[in-house]
Amino acid sequence: MSAIKELKNRFTELMRLNYISTLLGWDLQVNLPKSQGAAKGRSEQIALIEAIIHKKLVSKKTGEIIKKAENLSNLDLIDSALLREAKRKYNKAIKIPIELVTEIAKTASLGHQAWEKARAKSDFSMFEPYLEKMVRLEREYAEKIDIGPTLYDSLIDIYEPEAKSDWISKLFKDLKPRLMKILRKIESSDSDIPNQEILRKNYDPDKQWNLSMEIIKKLNFDFTKGRQDKSVHPFTASVSSMDTRITTRIWENFLPACLFGTIHECGHALYEMGFREELHDTFLADGSSLGFHESQSRLWENIIGRSKEFWNYWYPIAQKYFPENLKDYPEYEFYRSMNVVQPSFIRVEADEVTYGLHIIIRFELEKELINNSDSLSISELPNIWNSRMQELLGITPPDDAKGVLQDVHWSSGAFGYFPTYTLGNLYASQIYEDVLKKQPDLLEEIKQGNYLNLLKYLRENIHKHGRIYRPLDLLKKVTGENLNPDYFIKYLENKFYQIYNL
Amino acid sequence: MSAIKELKNRFTELMRLNYISTLLGWDLQVNLPKSQGAAKGRSEQIALIEAIIHKKLVSKKTGEIIKKAENLSNLDLIDSALLREAKRKYNKAIKIPIELVTEIAKTASLGHQAWEKARAKSDFSMFEPYLEKMVRLEREYAEKIDIGPTLYDSLIDIYEPEAKSDWISKLFKDLKPRLMKILRKIESSDSDIPNQEILRKNYDPDKQWNLSMEIIKKLNFDFTKGRQDKSVHPFTASVSSMDTRITTRIWENFLPACLFGTIHECGHALYEMGFREELHDTFLADGSSLGFHESQSRLWENIIGRSKEFWNYWYPIAQKYFPENLKDYPEYEFYRSMNVVQPSFIRVEADEVTYGLHIIIRFELEKELINNSDSLSISELPNIWNSRMQELLGITPPDDAKGVLQDVHWSSGAFGYFPTYTLGNLYASQIYEDVLKKQPDLLEEIKQGNYLNLLKYLRENIHKHGRIYRPLDLLKKVTGENLNPDYFIKYLENKFYQIYNL
Repeated sequence: MSAIKELKNRFTELMRLNYISTLLGWDLQVNLPKSQGAAKGRSEQIALIEAIIHKKLVSKKTGEIIKKAENLSNLDLIDSALLREAKRKYNKAIKIPIELVTEIAKTASLGHQAWEKARAKSDFSMFEPYLEKMVRLEREYAEKIDIGPTLYDSLIDIYEPEAKSDWISKLFKDLKPRLMKILRKIESSDSDIPNQEILRKNYDPDKQWNLSMEIIKKLNFDFTKGRQDKSVHPFTASVSSMDTRITTRIWENFLPACLFGTIHECGHALYEMGFREELHDTFLADGSSLGFHESQSRLWENIIGRSKEFWNYWYPIAQKYFPENLKDYPEYEFYRSMNVVQPSFIRVEADEVTYGLHIIIRFELEKELINNSDSLSISELPNIWNSRMQELLGITPPDDAKGVLQDVHWSSGAFGYFPTYTLGNLYASQIYEDVLKKQPDLLEEIKQGNYLNLLKYLRENIHKHGRIYRPLDLLKKVTGENLNPDYFIKYLENKFYQIYNL
Repeated sequence: MSAIKELKNRFTELMRLNYISTLLGWDLQVNLPKSQGAAKGRSEQIALIEAIIHKKLVSKKTGEIIKKAENLSNLDLIDSALLREAKRKYNKAIKIPIELVTEIAKTASLGHQAWEKARAKSDFSMFEPYLEKMVRLEREYAEKIDIGPTLYDSLIDIYEPEAKSDWISKLFKDLKPRLMKILRKIESSDSDIPNQEILRKNYDPDKQWNLSMEIIKKLNFDFTKGRQDKSVHPFTASVSSMDTRITTRIWENFLPACLFGTIHECGHALYEMGFREELHDTFLADGSSLGFHESQSRLWENIIGRSKEFWNYWYPIAQKYFPENLKDYPEYEFYRSMNVVQPSFIRVEADEVTYGLHIIIRFELEKELINNSDSLSISELPNIWNSRMQELLGITPPDDAKGVLQDVHWSSGAFGYFPTYTLGNLYASQIYEDVLKKQPDLLEEIKQGNYLNLLKYLRENIHKHGRIYRPLDLLKKVTGENLNPDYFIKYLENKFYQIYNL
């Protein structure tokens, strides 16, 4: 058997085991009965399959297969990307002692529980020792991975391959004043603040579900290769190369939760459903990076889903679903109500302008935590958090639940994850600008509920490539330009200055 | 580590992998999107996990662990049963070359497709070559297993451990004339034939679902440790020791499909939910045998679910669900309509009296096929089938779809499975007679929709033991007697002679 064929077989098995593990997780969140025993049984199964994957990945055999493939010359585009990803997985895995993996998993599990309780009681001290331990373990992890130049870089690399913290710092340093400027300008507007109460009326859950299904059908979610279910937190899970599942949540008194949850996850799913067949069952059947994946979900959720043109088509339909709330409510006011810009405490509820400022606060704090744990003590975190909030957003959280305790990420050790959200926004707006240039009829099509040409562009230029290209290379390949945050700023200004009559 | 602890750990891992495989299968039948690709992806995952299980099971390490445990003396009840089951699994697995396993799986997959098409066209010749090959492979399989005395015994043993074909033959030889006699007597009755049309009116699917959920709640199905879903064929699947799932199907124009499908699977699930905690995650977390499992499903479905007392409680409720059909229909007539005895072509639609005759035909044919393949040629099967139907039931199938092609079992190689259905009926009626003796208030309780004492009896005497005891030992332990088919005959006579005024 050829060396590349052997490599493919080995990693196809690993990918299939990953899919099995993903199904175990999907079912846990979607279907699992409520007993403690059911949860315990499932977590033991996940631990077992993950141990099998790890053992197979770090085995001598895998090392030999990779070495043989490395000796090949003239690999084509896909094969060399396959080899690159195989090496990436293998090298990360062999560098981390299994004891450290286990210790992090255990701390994450306990930390998550402690975080939930601490957040419920808004008492940071209950979470502090777990966070302290997790930071220590993540530093140890970063030291082993040793990508550098700083420890934090090794963690970012997990989510955004080859992205450097220094580069992100510069990007965010540029973004920060520009976002603050837009926010200040909007705050100074004489225009009335759009009424958000309309979104907080009672919306029948079954009807919300049906509307969400109608929308994703129209967005070309392929129900022969996927499904939608409900879960506490929306997520996307591919349980095979031809089976991508999304979830949504329904809040009876807040329409956007289901609506935008569904559209967001549909954006992720369309990416997963668009990988070319050659990539199926390989490690290239994945997004270019987490940030790139997020660019797709945010393009659909924010740029399309919160646009005037989108609601031009969907508002009459939404009115038919919920006449008691919307029959006499004007379309443009509904659009404005979904696009209120104002400083708020909770990141996941933030608008498109302030969202980036929430991310910058987290990025700067976690960079300090991981790189300079001496200079920043964990116990100071709540105060620093609050003062940064005051500095960037002009508000101070009334308690830690609405402050430093709001996000799940750190409890499970996901340091380096936050910046990918903003990278996703930057990629998305630059890509969208390019689509608009190449498809001048796009806005008209969206007004008619027709997303086929947009999807075709994304499929051809982004989705079908899966993880072949690195994010910045892919962005340049698609748009012909390096990453340029001007597109994001311009997008925000165009959209929101109109909404606020500026 | 002690030898027994090592054995437990090894087989706990295997059991957890089995649960993972079961989840992959459950999800395939309940949730899988319709594309060919999704089905292909899933079947590859199942093949992979089954290969991992097989490799682990037949490994040198497993053999060594078993050998060490065999040297122990004074094992307690559970540990010696654990060792017995470990040896049973291991010995079967090492005797079968992996090539034969693969060949059977492949032939089953092709054979199943061919069978579906052949049945749709009622053309036995389309299925014949696959059946011929499968019989040959199953004979080869039986030769390797070599339990004996005949080849067929080795196949029966898969489903009903230690049951012998000679013993079953004698049992069935005794049953056959007695069942035929009951049937003839009923056929000669002057009583009017109960009207089955009432069951074939239109029953709203959502209401059928809700009624089925109400019933299993009352039967003490524990929704914190399980769930019900829909699938094409009803089945029960434990995806961990604390997570047992059942499915049902809903036919809009035939009420019993959902109703009795649900109660049947609930009976299986109550068994699985009742294993004592010590058995969790071991190979003893299983029914004593397939026949014993079937005794539980049939006890709930037939003996309880089709009884006068059951409908005494449930009929007023069913009337409220379906007033348009049932409001003015008398309870006793409804009960009779569910208990019509008459010869019919299709086994799964047969009544409690003729069902056993359907099984006897299959048992005798497959015994001949496996043991004396020279004396019975595959091409003669349809004719022999039809003449046996004429002999036992007095009717001749109009075509092979309603005859030899009706069952799925042979296409997938499940020879030896059929007799367990009738064994289940025999075990069930003997057990039920014992409950009635020990709980004189039972019928009164059932009239009031109270099944707690019955379940308590089953839990204490049967469920909690899991697979510790062999079926005939367990039956004797429970009822104090050896298997006695008189109980089944007496049950049928008591019930149906009353219905038919005999």
